[in-house]
Amino acid sequence: MKTPFREIPGSITAPKGFRAAGVFCDIKRLGTGKGSNKGKKRDLAVIASDKPATAAGMFTTNQVCAAPVKLCAERIRSGKAQAIVVNSGNANACTGKQGFKDACAMSDLVAAKLKIVREAVLVGSTGRIGVTLPMPNVKRGIAGAVAALDHSPEHAAQVAEAIMTSDTRPKQIAVEFSLGGKRTLIGGVCKGAGMIQPGMSATGKRPPALHATMLCFITTDAVIGSAALQLSLEQAVAQSFNRITVDGDMSTNDTVLILANGLAGDATKAKDDFQRALNHVTLELAKMIVRDGEGASRFVTVHVNGAQSASDADGAARAVANSALVKTSWCGGDPNWGRILGALGYSSAKIAEEKIDVSYSLPVDSKRLFALRKGQPTDTPFRDLCRIVAEKEFDLHINLNLGKGRAIMYASDLTEEYVDFNKGDVTDPASLGG
Amino acid sequence: MKTPFREIPGSITAPKGFRAAGVFCDIKRLGTGKGSNKGKKRDLAVIASDKPATAAGMFTTNQVCAAPVKLCAERIRSGKAQAIVVNSGNANACTGKQGFKDACAMSDLVAAKLKIVREAVLVGSTGRIGVTLPMPNVKRGIAGAVAALDHSPEHAAQVAEAIMTSDTRPKQIAVEFSLGGKRTLIGGVCKGAGMIQPGMSATGKRPPALHATMLCFITTDAVIGSAALQLSLEQAVAQSFNRITVDGDMSTNDTVLILANGLAGDATKAKDDFQRALNHVTLELAKMIVRDGEGASRFVTVHVNGAQSASDADGAARAVANSALVKTSWCGGDPNWGRILGALGYSSAKIAEEKIDVSYSLPVDSKRLFALRKGQPTDTPFRDLCRIVAEKEFDLHINLNLGKGRAIMYASDLTEEYVDFNKGDVTDPASLGG
Repeated sequence: MKTPFREIPGSITAPKGFRAAGVFCDIKRLGTGKGSNKGKKRDLAVIASDKPATAAGMFTTNQVCAAPVKLCAERIRSGKAQAIVVNSGNANACTGKQGFKDACAMSDLVAAKLKIVREAVLVGSTGRIGVTLPMPNVKRGIAGAVAALDHSPEHAAQVAEAIMTSDTRPKQIAVEFSLGGKRTLIGGVCKGAGMIQPGMSATGKRPPALHATMLCFITTDAVIGSAALQLSLEQAVAQSFNRITVDGDMSTNDTVLILANGLAGDATKAKDDFQRALNHVTLELAKMIVRDGEGASRFVTVHVNGAQSASDADGAARAVANSALVKTSWCGGDPNWGRILGALGYSSAKIAEEKIDVSYSLPVDSKRLFALRKGQPTDTPFRDLCRIVAEKEFDLHINLNLGKGRAIMYASDLTEEYVDFNKGDVTDPASLGG
Repeated sequence: MKTPFREIPGSITAPKGFRAAGVFCDIKRLGTGKGSNKGKKRDLAVIASDKPATAAGMFTTNQVCAAPVKLCAERIRSGKAQAIVVNSGNANACTGKQGFKDACAMSDLVAAKLKIVREAVLVGSTGRIGVTLPMPNVKRGIAGAVAALDHSPEHAAQVAEAIMTSDTRPKQIAVEFSLGGKRTLIGGVCKGAGMIQPGMSATGKRPPALHATMLCFITTDAVIGSAALQLSLEQAVAQSFNRITVDGDMSTNDTVLILANGLAGDATKAKDDFQRALNHVTLELAKMIVRDGEGASRFVTVHVNGAQSASDADGAARAVANSALVKTSWCGGDPNWGRILGALGYSSAKIAEEKIDVSYSLPVDSKRLFALRKGQPTDTPFRDLCRIVAEKEFDLHINLNLGKGRAIMYASDLTEEYVDFNKGDVTDPASLGG
C-alpha cells in the first residue's frame, strides 16, 4: 500500500488558491509582560481563499466563551467562508456587548477590503481576557495584512507567528496526497502552550472531554461538501486536539477552522484518503502544542487499554494525564506507579487494582518495561524504568484488563517553569492571560 | 447565648480515659529521602481507650485503597473499638494479600499487648506505596508504644508527630464543652500535606467530591451511640475534610476515625452541642492541612453562592480551587479573574457569564472588593485587589446569581516548591509517596 500522504514544507498557503499575511499592529505590545512576547511581534493575521470555500469549525465548550467564538459558531452554520482574521495579545473574552461588536467589526473590515460579504469572514482571538480590543490598532493591522496577502510559504509562516502567545515557536505543517489522480494539499497552523485541555464540539454539546487557548486554522484545496467537511473535522479533532492536555484548564477561546476551496482533487469518493491526511495534520499540530506546553520538559503518551468502555478508558487516561502528582513525578524522571494507581483509583473508570498492568516504552522502541503486572511490582530494576522516564518523550501503557475500551492522551509534565510562568507579574495586568 | 465550646491545649488525651504514645521504629528511616523527614522521627503510634468505646469512621473512596483502609472499613461496622495503631513511612497500599495480613498482624499485636480482642483495634498507615511493611520494626514499635501509653499532652503530641510525612508541623486540637452539666472533651490529631482532595464516605458510595493522604484520629469522652456517632462524623467531615484541596489528587489511604468512650457528658439529648464541637475540631484540623499543604504559600477560602443547586455550587468551587492556572495566579498574588471565569465555564455548574460577581476580602475583614460585577470588570483599582491577594490568607467570593446553591472550598496555591517537592528524587525509591 502506498503512503496515502506525504509531509511537505509550508503550511496554509501550500494548497492552491490560499493567500495569507501576518503583521505587527501593537496589540501584543500593549499587553507586553511575562505572559506575552517581548518586543515587536506580529499579532494580526489574515488568511483568504481566492474563491468561496466550504467551511467547518469546532469551538470550546467552555460556558464562558469569547466574542469571536460566538460569532464563528453562528457563521459556520452556513458551511461557507472565504477568509479568516485572527489576532493575538487580546482574547476578546469577557468583553460583553462591545466585544461582540468588535469581533463583527473585524470581519467587516476584512470583508470590505476583500470585497466579499461579511458573513464569509471568520474571526479568532487569543491573549488577555477582559479587556476590549484596541480597535484602531486592529483596523491598521487588517489594512496592512490584507494588502500583504501572498501565496508564499513565508507569508504562511507570518500567520503561524502572529497567533503565538506563550508559545516558544511557530507550529505549522502541510501534507500532499492524491485524490482522483490530482495532487491535493492540506496545510495548517496552530498555537497553544497553556490553558490546554480542549473539549471541543461543533454543536455546543459538551464532549466527554473537559478542557486550551488553542487556535488552529487549516486550509485545503480538496473538493468536499460542508457537511462532509464538518464530520471529517470532528473526527480529526477527536483523535488530536481533544486528546491533549498541558494543564487541564479549558480555554474560553479554543477554535479550529478549516476552509476547503475545491481547486484540486475531489474528496467525495475518497473520504478515507482525505480523512487520513487531515488526521495526520491535526495530530501533528496537537503534538506540537504539547511539546511546546508552558514549561514542559516531557512529552508523554498515555495509552489506556482494557477498560470496560471507551468512556472508562477516556476517564482513566485523563485522570492520569491531569494528576498534579503524576505530572510532577514525570518532571523528576520518576516512574512513580503508586501515583498512577492512585489517579486510576479516583478516575471515573471502573478498575480492579489486582488486574492492572503498567509499563513504559520509548516511542521509537516497541520494547516495553513492566513496572506492575496484575497490580504487583515486577522485578524490573528501578533504574531501568528511570532510564525511560528520563527521556524527553516516552509512552506509558496502562492495561486495566477488564474489557476492550481504549484511549490515548498526549500530555506534558508539570514543572517549576510552568508555575513561574503562570504565577504572572502583578505589576503587569497583561499577565491576565486567556 | 454561651459559646457552646472552647478550645483548650492538648488533643487526643484531653478527653478522660484516653492514653497515647508515639515511638521511633525506623519505618520512616527506611524510606528516608526528599519525600520523608530526614533523621530519626517518630513513625508509629498507638491510641487506646481505658474502656471499650463506640467508634465511627470514614475512608477514601479511591478504588485503589490501602490494606488498613480495607480492614478498618470492615471493622468499623461493629460500631465499637478500643484502640488505634498507625504508622507513617509506609502506606501499606498496593501490597496485595501480604499487605492485608500485615495490617491484621498490627492489630493483633496491639490487641495482645492491651489484652483486648483484635476486632477492637483499628489500623492506619501513610507513606510509601507499593512496599510491604518492615514487620520486625512494626512489632518493636508496637511493643514500645503500648508500654509508653500515657494520659499526658506530651504523649498526644507524640502521636501528632508520628503520623507526619511531608507535613512540616504537627496538627492537633482539643475543645471542651458542657453536656448535661458535665465537662466533656473532644480531641484530634491529623496529618496531610499532599495528595489532598479527600472524598470520603462511610458506605463506599462515592460522594460528589473527588479526591489526600490525610489521616485524622479523634477521641471524645462523650456518651453517644455508634449510629449517632457515625452520622455526626459524616456531617463533620462533609463540612471539613471533604471541602479541602491541595493538589486535587485523592489518596489511597484517607482515614478519619473517632472513638467515644462515654466517660463524660451525654450527647444523646444535646446532639447539636456535640455536633458544633465536632464540626469545629474537624474544620480546624482540615484548615491546618491546607495551611501546611506541600509548598503552599496561600490559604484561600473559595465561597460560591447563587448556584442553581448545591451540587452546581460544589462543582464550581472545586473547578476554581483545583485549576492549575487559578492556583498559580494565587501563588503570584495575582487577582486573575479571567482564569476564575474560565474555570467556572468548564465546571459542572450551569453559569451565565453576564451574571457572575467576583469579589475578594480578608478573612478578618468583612469588606469585599469587587473585581467583577455581572460579568463586567469593576473600577476597583487593580492594585487594591492585588493588596488582598498578596496576603497569606484571603477569601474569594463568587456569586453566580442563578439560585440558592452554595459551597465552600479551602484551597492552597500551586507553587514552584510544590513541584520541586513532588518531582521526587529518583535516586531514592522512597519518594514513591502515597
